[in-house]
Amino acid sequence: MKIAVVGCGAVGSFYGAGLCRTGRDEVHFLLRSDHDAVVARGVQIHSVAGDFHVHPRCARHPEDIGPCDLVIVALKTTANALFPVLLPPLTGPHTRVLTLQNGLGNEDRLAAVVGAERVFGGLCFVCLNRTAPGVIQHLAHGLVVLGEHRRPAGPAVAGIASRFAAAGIPVRVDPDLERAHWEKLVWNVPFNGLGVAGVAGFEAVCAGRLGPRPLRERTLPTDELLGDPRWAALVEELMFEVIHGARARGFPVPDAVAGENLERTRCMGPYRASTLLDFERGLPTERESLFEEPRRQAAAAGAVTPRLAALCAVLRQLEEKRANGVAGG
Amino acid sequence: MKIAVVGCGAVGSFYGAGLCRTGRDEVHFLLRSDHDAVVARGVQIHSVAGDFHVHPRCARHPEDIGPCDLVIVALKTTANALFPVLLPPLTGPHTRVLTLQNGLGNEDRLAAVVGAERVFGGLCFVCLNRTAPGVIQHLAHGLVVLGEHRRPAGPAVAGIASRFAAAGIPVRVDPDLERAHWEKLVWNVPFNGLGVAGVAGFEAVCAGRLGPRPLRERTLPTDELLGDPRWAALVEELMFEVIHGARARGFPVPDAVAGENLERTRCMGPYRASTLLDFERGLPTERESLFEEPRRQAAAAGAVTPRLAALCAVLRQLEEKRANGVAGG
Repeated sequence: MKIAVVGCGAVGSFYGAGLCRTGRDEVHFLLRSDHDAVVARGVQIHSVAGDFHVHPRCARHPEDIGPCDLVIVALKTTANALFPVLLPPLTGPHTRVLTLQNGLGNEDRLAAVVGAERVFGGLCFVCLNRTAPGVIQHLAHGLVVLGEHRRPAGPAVAGIASRFAAAGIPVRVDPDLERAHWEKLVWNVPFNGLGVAGVAGFEAVCAGRLGPRPLRERTLPTDELLGDPRWAALVEELMFEVIHGARARGFPVPDAVAGENLERTRCMGPYRASTLLDFERGLPTERESLFEEPRRQAAAAGAVTPRLAALCAVLRQLEEKRANGVAGG
Repeated sequence: MKIAVVGCGAVGSFYGAGLCRTGRDEVHFLLRSDHDAVVARGVQIHSVAGDFHVHPRCARHPEDIGPCDLVIVALKTTANALFPVLLPPLTGPHTRVLTLQNGLGNEDRLAAVVGAERVFGGLCFVCLNRTAPGVIQHLAHGLVVLGEHRRPAGPAVAGIASRFAAAGIPVRVDPDLERAHWEKLVWNVPFNGLGVAGVAGFEAVCAGRLGPRPLRERTLPTDELLGDPRWAALVEELMFEVIHGARARGFPVPDAVAGENLERTRCMGPYRASTLLDFERGLPTERESLFEEPRRQAAAAGAVTPRLAALCAVLRQLEEKRANGVAGG
């Protein structure tokens, strides 16, 4: 099977390297900044499940790869505007396109470019860090949950899942991809969102606007959010707003999901989610797919989510402030 | 869809009630001891995800139900000898049979009765307790992972999964059911096995035979096993033996699964797995499917598992001792 991996950050590199490792598939990495490093030294995975090292085929332009059987999209969602440039050269009549990106709306944007019938989505439950070009630290977990875009799961997604499983990647198929996305947001919205917005202070995040006081120097990892009763209450309230939004959209996510996520996170110890790392590095955050799109979809379904709206507003203002050169977080 | 639930302990009652609740399916419970109570008062689910109450159709004999579209088998595996009596009356040309039972070998035994092509398996990640006939406490979690027996996952299992999902039951499909069973055993073997065998004392469990000293009064819940460094080391060693067995069978379960299970269990607080409850109530334990069959399959694949063998031997001797009326644990 000919596979292209588009976006070779931590997620793309890790799962792409896993598929590469079996030697059964022809795996191409589409790279920009990391191209020369990966050509020279390959991809090195330092993993709790055992280190490994692969040399995928590397390309700078999708035209150099051509049509594939499977395209895995692992770009940051801030780069989704590149879909019309990157996808068509990789897509032939039988190509399937799988996005492993965070949040809502990515499948729809892909569908607009390549056609909905060939779009699949996946959720990655994994702790990864890209520490240098082509060097990935795999800290914990690794499950991928796959589904079909706006269709119940069928043989096509089962086929993709089998490919992952054959490479030793833990994988499941969810019968309802969109519900699975909402369920993952129950964790992502508070811990990614408040982790970043927290630099503006608790009062600012509640009010939905930056106050006069200077920003904190550092974002708030999970243990700091849960260690302060005010933040912990806001985490839980945001979880219930996401659950409320999911239900308005017709997905019966039970209340208990909030408690289970809280308990699991208390156990994890300090963790800095990807959005925190992006923000600290001065990179754009995945605000659109992780926060704005859920807020819009919840609102369109009639759900009121005031804390999520305030969170989005603060994240927008932090970006504007940074764009104006006033502060870098 | 006409569905029969065979075995209405905690698992069968909980998921059967969930399917019943939608009102879309015709759900029959096949009951013995609980029949009259469930006819009179229905099934009451006290759940962290919200209480509910249903009145399924009830039958004492499979002939009173007749052929179904889906048969859900949730008997204790100690009752698997009943398959040839219970299954044929429920099985027509298009019937699918799903076992939600613990451990290895249940699908094979079902296949011998109804034919392998119609057999499916499911793993339940859920904390339940049946506190009275028809009364189930749902304490945490609830995910069901489904797969096909000796076939990669296809549209048939996706169809069953959609039925569960439509009832609000969290469900995933695993491309490889047998690997999923082995991965679940990484937890089940040490915590169910040592929890019970621990009544014989640490030295006995290491030696594989009961010693002269009297049995402890109580089984060992997860926190007591992990709180004592000697037991905790044995838990971990058993985990690695199960992983070793899984790999010998061709399933690439990574070492990291052991650490993740340990960490998750440390977080859970005290928990008494089902085998402990069975043993304390004087009921037969699921020794065959949870311990003996994994030991046999690992051995047949050339894996050496001395701690698992010793554990099986102690569990056998505890049963014999009890059968001889010497002690009840």
